[in-house]
Amino acid sequence: MRAEIISVGTELLLGEITDTNARFLASQLPGLGIDLYWISQVGDNQARLVEVLRRAWQRSDLILITGGLGPTEDDLTREAIAEMLGEKLKLVPALERELQEFFARLGIDMPLTNLKQATLIPSADAIRNVSGTAPGWWVEKDKHILIAMPGPPREMQPMWHHQILPRLRQSTTGEIIVSKTLKTFGLTEAKVGEMVSPLLAASNPTLGIYAKVDGIYLRLTAKARGQKQAEEMIAPGEARLRSILGEYIWGTDSDTLEAVVGHMLAEKGLSLAVMEGYTGGLLAATITGAPGAVAYFKGGLVAGSEEAQIACGVDAGVISDCGASSREAAQAMAGAARLHLGADIGVGIAGVDEPGGGEGRPVSTIYIGIDDGKNKRAITARYPGDRAWAKRRAVATALFKLREILATAG
Amino acid sequence: MRAEIISVGTELLLGEITDTNARFLASQLPGLGIDLYWISQVGDNQARLVEVLRRAWQRSDLILITGGLGPTEDDLTREAIAEMLGEKLKLVPALERELQEFFARLGIDMPLTNLKQATLIPSADAIRNVSGTAPGWWVEKDKHILIAMPGPPREMQPMWHHQILPRLRQSTTGEIIVSKTLKTFGLTEAKVGEMVSPLLAASNPTLGIYAKVDGIYLRLTAKARGQKQAEEMIAPGEARLRSILGEYIWGTDSDTLEAVVGHMLAEKGLSLAVMEGYTGGLLAATITGAPGAVAYFKGGLVAGSEEAQIACGVDAGVISDCGASSREAAQAMAGAARLHLGADIGVGIAGVDEPGGGEGRPVSTIYIGIDDGKNKRAITARYPGDRAWAKRRAVATALFKLREILATAG
Repeated sequence: MRAEIISVGTELLLGEITDTNARFLASQLPGLGIDLYWISQVGDNQARLVEVLRRAWQRSDLILITGGLGPTEDDLTREAIAEMLGEKLKLVPALERELQEFFARLGIDMPLTNLKQATLIPSADAIRNVSGTAPGWWVEKDKHILIAMPGPPREMQPMWHHQILPRLRQSTTGEIIVSKTLKTFGLTEAKVGEMVSPLLAASNPTLGIYAKVDGIYLRLTAKARGQKQAEEMIAPGEARLRSILGEYIWGTDSDTLEAVVGHMLAEKGLSLAVMEGYTGGLLAATITGAPGAVAYFKGGLVAGSEEAQIACGVDAGVISDCGASSREAAQAMAGAARLHLGADIGVGIAGVDEPGGGEGRPVSTIYIGIDDGKNKRAITARYPGDRAWAKRRAVATALFKLREILATAG
Repeated sequence: MRAEIISVGTELLLGEITDTNARFLASQLPGLGIDLYWISQVGDNQARLVEVLRRAWQRSDLILITGGLGPTEDDLTREAIAEMLGEKLKLVPALERELQEFFARLGIDMPLTNLKQATLIPSADAIRNVSGTAPGWWVEKDKHILIAMPGPPREMQPMWHHQILPRLRQSTTGEIIVSKTLKTFGLTEAKVGEMVSPLLAASNPTLGIYAKVDGIYLRLTAKARGQKQAEEMIAPGEARLRSILGEYIWGTDSDTLEAVVGHMLAEKGLSLAVMEGYTGGLLAATITGAPGAVAYFKGGLVAGSEEAQIACGVDAGVISDCGASSREAAQAMAGAARLHLGADIGVGIAGVDEPGGGEGRPVSTIYIGIDDGKNKRAITARYPGDRAWAKRRAVATALFKLREILATAG
């Protein structure tokens, strides 16, 4: 089954809102074995909307539309579907009653403009909306299914989960699509591409490569009659990727570096504390973003200035000898965090976050220290590009290094 | 000039990432007086990409493409443009040299696959990429402009601002669209809508209302022959909104709460320190994200546990009497941060971040304390909804409260 998503709304074309509906719906289709080939956004303009619908009707079996079901004059999805199919809109008394009841519950008189939300064409069934006034439309005609949903995600998503998904599942009996993502750190995208190039030619499962702030992801996607069969098709590819990429792989699918590291700490009964200069709190915020961090994270110290570092227990001599941006300072910060907060392992991130920034700014050099009471390690890393990204990259580097140390500690 | 945006990448069709590039580019066009009629997303498939490009070439004057310029085999934007225009890709020695230099700066050998990023067709000029390896393409042919940019926003956006926007501005004349956004905090979207309802009917400038994590935004948008004329059309509406919303307005346009607060601190010569439980470092990370924060931010302490709070100077008696989640604890954290790090003002955020969470979890109650050495204040706030959002909301609440105190301190 070939699917297409159409998001309706001039606010999308003005860049006022991001189209999160298309992403949500796209993420729902692989599990149904539905192939999605097209997504498009179109404004509140009937002629252009009809044009997009006509093309979708020609090339796709399933058309998912969000937006344009509101009560105002620029909500034109109903009208456009009717025009595309050559059918007429009619007021449906039962829908009108439901709308009246919805407003009665809010203690408001129903504005007349809402009446258009109680209209249907002969090929359409109404889909109940428990969170708003716009019912959805389910149209089945000439072996096509067209589903129109309201634009606000808090109305669309419950409608999808409770009314549309169960019904759609019945209409699709074919293959499903299953993906498995391996997440690596420490290699460039091109290098990963080179290493796994023999697998890139395969068609089922296919292999995709994506660069993210926390490393390079590799995604295997298989199409099969069922979950188990798809998993069996993915397994050999995964084994091969694991043998090629080995220690660079830190997780799979929805894993995050902070959760992976957190899990290792919890398992080994070790606790963690951090002191950050360059990243200004982002390392602590990332670590505490993982569920259950309270069990192993003793705390963090954000010290951008030398005096703050000294107030938090860093030896003033190290800073005066080596500078606040140095391997030695990073190690001293790691040690001070560990001692000050009574943790087994301390991590320090040193480096100057120059104000200003922008294009042409020098590549930032930062230093990451890790102290587990037995060994003091330090690594140097350099990040080109923007400030916010460089900080996220520094956090990922620190977590990946920490994972490596925890893994080899046995 | 009719524009069209095409975002390339199978990950968009699998719902793995949201297409923020399309929104970014869409938001840039009104200021150029360019009308955007179409946005679409297409996977890493050359045939479908060529089909989308052919249609765009027929109906649009300006085509903006992001994605598919990477070094791997599934990066097909260059190939698809060449096929659509019937031109051949050629390796360009100057581009190859630049790539070699890019890798040399990082101290890495250039993988051979990156060579495809040094290719061009005769109609295309390369657009320099300061943040990555993929140059953009600027194609002008038969009165069409086609611009291809890399997909990662941190590469695409600087390229847009520094290389593409200035050149595009020369190609366009006519009306421009100018917007002014007022940012408020402390009111619900519906309440703001009620208060400003007389202005919502106007057509030039129009008024839009948007709910964000740092409050409700109001955007006035005017269409005019020039910047000055548009600004004169916006001014009366802005004055009216300011008289209605008064102290709820904390900034405009690209202002952030952290930059607004930072500016006030710098102006008054005051310094700041924080201690966070609930937000786990996000307050410090947000504050240090503002340019120049090193001048006024003394540091932060992330202390999720009682022992960490006590290690950082919180009076153990306060915690045993009132609990770690209390107004008193928040005030004590604010005071301890201030003293421990030698700052003029201390902010404390107390509250338990329950692990797990998800739908149906109870509303989180958090406590924000602010201590400027003269007064100790505390406010209580409750956030329904997901954990990450609630933390961001807590940070915004703390910063807005701090702004209020700094404003009334004269």
